[in-house]
Amino acid sequence: MAVDNLTAVQYGINDIKLEQRPIPEPTDDQVLLQMEVVGICGSDVHYLTEGRCGPFVMNGPMICGHEASGTVSKCGKNVKNLKPGDRVAIEPGVPCRKCELCRIGKYNLCPDMKFCATPPIDGNLSRFYCSDADYCFKLPCNMTLEEGALMEPLSVGVHGAKLGRVKMGHVCFVEGCGPIGLSMMASVKAWGASKVLITDLLENRLQVAKKMGADYTLKIEESMTEDDICKKVLEILGEEPHASFDCAGGEKCTRVALRVTRAAGVVVILGMRELEMNLPLADALIKEIDIRGSFRYNNDYADAIEMVRTGRVNVKPMITHHFKMEDTVKAFETARDRIGDPIKIHIHTNPKWNP
Amino acid sequence: MAVDNLTAVQYGINDIKLEQRPIPEPTDDQVLLQMEVVGICGSDVHYLTEGRCGPFVMNGPMICGHEASGTVSKCGKNVKNLKPGDRVAIEPGVPCRKCELCRIGKYNLCPDMKFCATPPIDGNLSRFYCSDADYCFKLPCNMTLEEGALMEPLSVGVHGAKLGRVKMGHVCFVEGCGPIGLSMMASVKAWGASKVLITDLLENRLQVAKKMGADYTLKIEESMTEDDICKKVLEILGEEPHASFDCAGGEKCTRVALRVTRAAGVVVILGMRELEMNLPLADALIKEIDIRGSFRYNNDYADAIEMVRTGRVNVKPMITHHFKMEDTVKAFETARDRIGDPIKIHIHTNPKWNP
Amino acid sequence: MAVDNLTAVQYGINDIKLEQRPIPEPTDDQVLLQMEVVGICGSDVHYLTEGRCGPFVMNGPMICGHEASGTVSKCGKNVKNLKPGDRVAIEPGVPCRKCELCRIGKYNLCPDMKFCATPPIDGNLSRFYCSDADYCFKLPCNMTLEEGALMEPLSVGVHGAKLGRVKMGHVCFVEGCGPIGLSMMASVKAWGASKVLITDLLENRLQVAKKMGADYTLKIEESMTEDDICKKVLEILGEEPHASFDCAGGEKCTRVALRVTRAAGVVVILGMRELEMNLPLADALIKEIDIRGSFRYNNDYADAIEMVRTGRVNVKPMITHHFKMEDTVKAFETARDRIGDPIKIHIHTNPKWNP
Amino acid sequence: MAVDNLTAVQYGINDIKLEQRPIPEPTDDQVLLQMEVVGICGSDVHYLTEGRCGPFVMNGPMICGHEASGTVSKCGKNVKNLKPGDRVAIEPGVPCRKCELCRIGKYNLCPDMKFCATPPIDGNLSRFYCSDADYCFKLPCNMTLEEGALMEPLSVGVHGAKLGRVKMGHVCFVEGCGPIGLSMMASVKAWGASKVLITDLLENRLQVAKKMGADYTLKIEESMTEDDICKKVLEILGEEPHASFDCAGGEKCTRVALRVTRAAGVVVILGMRELEMNLPLADALIKEIDIRGSFRYNNDYADAIEMVRTGRVNVKPMITHHFKMEDTVKAFETARDRIGDPIKIHIHTNPKWNP
Repeated sequence: MAVDNLTAVQYGINDIKLEQRPIPEPTDDQVLLQMEVVGICGSDVHYLTEGRCGPFVMNGPMICGHEASGTVSKCGKNVKNLKPGDRVAIEPGVPCRKCELCRIGKYNLCPDMKFCATPPIDGNLSRFYCSDADYCFKLPCNMTLEEGALMEPLSVGVHGAKLGRVKMGHVCFVEGCGPIGLSMMASVKAWGASKVLITDLLENRLQVAKKMGADYTLKIEESMTEDDICKKVLEILGEEPHASFDCAGGEKCTRVALRVTRAAGVVVILGMRELEMNLPLADALIKEIDIRGSFRYNNDYADAIEMVRTGRVNVKPMITHHFKMEDTVKAFETARDRIGDPIKIHIHTNPKWNP
Repeated sequence: MAVDNLTAVQYGINDIKLEQRPIPEPTDDQVLLQMEVVGICGSDVHYLTEGRCGPFVMNGPMICGHEASGTVSKCGKNVKNLKPGDRVAIEPGVPCRKCELCRIGKYNLCPDMKFCATPPIDGNLSRFYCSDADYCFKLPCNMTLEEGALMEPLSVGVHGAKLGRVKMGHVCFVEGCGPIGLSMMASVKAWGASKVLITDLLENRLQVAKKMGADYTLKIEESMTEDDICKKVLEILGEEPHASFDCAGGEKCTRVALRVTRAAGVVVILGMRELEMNLPLADALIKEIDIRGSFRYNNDYADAIEMVRTGRVNVKPMITHHFKMEDTVKAFETARDRIGDPIKIHIHTNPKWNP
Repeated sequence: MAVDNLTAVQYGINDIKLEQRPIPEPTDDQVLLQMEVVGICGSDVHYLTEGRCGPFVMNGPMICGHEASGTVSKCGKNVKNLKPGDRVAIEPGVPCRKCELCRIGKYNLCPDMKFCATPPIDGNLSRFYCSDADYCFKLPCNMTLEEGALMEPLSVGVHGAKLGRVKMGHVCFVEGCGPIGLSMMASVKAWGASKVLITDLLENRLQVAKKMGADYTLKIEESMTEDDICKKVLEILGEEPHASFDCAGGEKCTRVALRVTRAAGVVVILGMRELEMNLPLADALIKEIDIRGSFRYNNDYADAIEMVRTGRVNVKPMITHHFKMEDTVKAFETARDRIGDPIKIHIHTNPKWNP
Repeated sequence: MAVDNLTAVQYGINDIKLEQRPIPEPTDDQVLLQMEVVGICGSDVHYLTEGRCGPFVMNGPMICGHEASGTVSKCGKNVKNLKPGDRVAIEPGVPCRKCELCRIGKYNLCPDMKFCATPPIDGNLSRFYCSDADYCFKLPCNMTLEEGALMEPLSVGVHGAKLGRVKMGHVCFVEGCGPIGLSMMASVKAWGASKVLITDLLENRLQVAKKMGADYTLKIEESMTEDDICKKVLEILGEEPHASFDCAGGEKCTRVALRVTRAAGVVVILGMRELEMNLPLADALIKEIDIRGSFRYNNDYADAIEMVRTGRVNVKPMITHHFKMEDTVKAFETARDRIGDPIKIHIHTNPKWNP
């Protein structure tokens, strides 16, 4: 058995170190995973530069990483769904399985959730990691380990599409072309949306959106007012969207989403954002628009995998950078300083990886 | 047949006149109603004092009134659900029956809705009025015509309870003890809520709430901060509410509702309100709280009647004032100037009414 | 204006005559349509050969046909959604728009439904026909009039997919490769089903299913027992289906569907069938399988069109025969006697049609 | 600590013995309970007389009992929701918490469910018993331990009411006045049903139904045909029920339920029953009636307790017989031989019980 378990530990702001840790032993219900690919998420960058992400604050050293795929190395004795050699996408949060929210199937809101790289829980950016077996999803043979690591952001999109009640023929509006916005856009297309408009400030990101299937893109200029954007959105779509998805986070974006969405529609808001916002709520409420926060995912990984397996979604254009594990610090700096316009940066944790 | 069709017409701000109008003839699908009781709603007062209510603006004379009960006087030839002499509660909005929203059952959002006393559509504060027969609901024998006129605000409460997904055992929080707040409180109790806390600035209104079944009341003092109110609400309830209902309308109320509601809960916002609000949205969204506007009602009248018929709800404590039709102007002034702390003012349109 | 309104009228069992009828005048809410394509449905054959279809019994002459497309020739004065020249698919049933079921959006169950070619309502197999404008759906430019006429059976499939609660990744089982079975299969694929197995007695029909996207087909032999079929279905799928759709109608088919479906799954039953069936209900109920009848469609036409417009569904392989209107009797005989293994027979009602 | 752990063990058909067993030790997530009241269920009688109940077959000795209340004697170290001295109702099935069905909140269908007194899992008819703490529900101070033991059948009723989609104003029809039928009837009333008709063959049971709130009762005579019963049901209710609940189990009952239920309604079937039934399915399906099996309960205990706590339901009239634990064999014989027309027989397992 290998003894190398190189692990990326964040000790403080802009202070990530690689160090050896003992290889953990799986419990009866866990699998030991040879980690393969770990993506860097926006929240990772928040921890790196601020030591916190929204309400979650670091309070000691923490292993990084939560967007990951791996290969099963060893199975606990109760594990039936996996066997050594299986390649898996890892759902990074394991709930208590006992509280009221777990019992009704909304485990993403479990107050005792243990979520990788959300303080004080360690992440999985290491050579080896133990995960509860039922939170590992076997990849079909036509999917790569890099696609597997992208099932995390794609599951965020799937969850948003469900909250947005997207169905065949819906018109959708997505704000922001980061990994979440792109996953959101791809998800609503897979769930039947007839036309999707996506916006961003950066042209290269809009190009990626097109590659991934966006029907329309709109480049937002800093000079555009809220009215300008609303007018443009309605002009391009030709009708009000059934569902709007704010994956950008600024007050202006949320305001636009509330204003353009049609009666009986939904505005889904994803990701961390400004704590206080000034919003034109009255008009939205008179149209009975639902405003829904979307937090992580529950029961969405299998759908995400299915969408890629069947070719309904192509996530590959999101991957812009690759690093081997030894270059983890450089990878995080690249994410932080936005060197080379990164969308998704992948760290390859298997020492056998060949770029 | 009677020839007296005294009718209350608003000509401008603070300018309501009583005048005779011809008695209308029902179409094949309508009934002619001897109007019995018409309540004064907050929106009526807005039209009286400002000539508008939220986005709806008066643009010429308009007959007042939309919270009404009547007695069937004559039936159009296609009418099967009613016969002369039947006492009915009148749902005051008739949708187009053809648009996408009507076809899926969300007719309250129909863009071609014809709603009594919402410009430019005339209301029903008159001796006689024709209504589509399928928007008249026969009152059971154990209900009075005054209760019938209260089915309008109670239906608003029923609609809110449905949007709030209230069910057996839920903990609820209602802000505001006007007719909508009281209807909301009574509705959630009827739908199974285990404890309901209701707030208001006025002690006499909280007393009415108690009479109607509120488990807890909280008198809001002007000096109380948002933090004070949140703390007090959680202290009284002993746990976070599953659903909160803002029937008050100020920014502070909406903020409190967003802050106290539990994860996976709902904040329902009823009635017209400030166009722009500064809100602590981020924390609510991370808990996947749904923020839902509730606009009027659809398919709710039958439920409201059933709730009163079976004694689940007692609406009578809401009625604080009575006027005969000839005193309509005085009734509206009483509502406007809040003379004698009115909750619901009833105008009796049948000349045979004996106080 | 044309004066030719050749019309196919059924006078009794095996007695269809073509005759001239006056061209009707649209009401304010209707359009006059130049009829283009009318398909022959299984129910049409039942009326032809038995004078009845399930509970619906002919009681006098009736114009045939209800699976149709047309071109708008003239609009009533209230019509806003269409203009002359628009090509449309015609939803053939118009409900009362007033009853409790219409008001909640389940208009397919309206007791006062007026449905083409369901006694005593006339159908639309004629040169000209008036339809309520809101029950006509404009075809996008990339769809043909023949595809338009197929939106009727495809909507049956869409309705079934909704009742079956099909979503991304579901495993589905469809029995029967007639137009309904094929539409059902295509619909569940479009709604995200990951694998679909379809069965039939006839190899040529299974070939059509493959062309339309079936993942697996199973030819049922008369010699196969219920146990044989169950075993084979589970063997092919490798797991129990989330939803099964009985589009065949015999007792054996319904029994198989009940037996193979997984816990918490759905068995949807489409079409008319044997009045009494002996069923192994206990085992299905212990698994909380829902058994749901699917009757026609509501709010499904737009989805059906969207599925074809976007290439998610290809309905063309269903069309096996073409006739011009003058050959209507021959077309019906071909359907009745199953000459040339017909799946869908199209009658072209526009005299300008060139085969 | 007590050492008496008298336990009722069934060794075979009509062979129950009382014997001492060691007092078990709770795991970290469990509580040790002093058992208080255990009711005898229909399934217990099936095991007693046949060694099986539906598909579940005894295959060795098994401790009896699953309808129980107890008092917390000792808490495992992780237990936070309970403390010694708390009186609880015990949900008798603990699922795997890991499978697909558990994760979506349908844990009652978990294939690895461990359910008391369902072979091979032991029941809780003993002096002491260990239960997972999250499957114990603290009783409010106004509820007795006997009511606590009745939360099991009442939860079956709550689950059925949810599957029946019962809401304010619904008309309901319940067949059978055993503990499940009575619980079903009481549940639909609590969920807002406006009128409920319940049937049985025995007059004394109908009297209990009346005491518990049935609006109408119908005594079924052996001589009545299916047509007679259907006619009588519709005559009494004056309209078709929105939901029918078959808690009786014979083919005739299921047939009547299918025939009388209104379009878009639901027929819920509870309990074990004949494996094969001949059913008039076609007419039910054309009305899009859903036929749903209801199996045990999930997330229903809290609702059941709330219904009793608030006085919405009175379960006490169901209890007809009491035995002390030493007389367990006599209690089972009384159930088996229906001595004194038992509805619910309670065995008191606490030696301190005073009749």
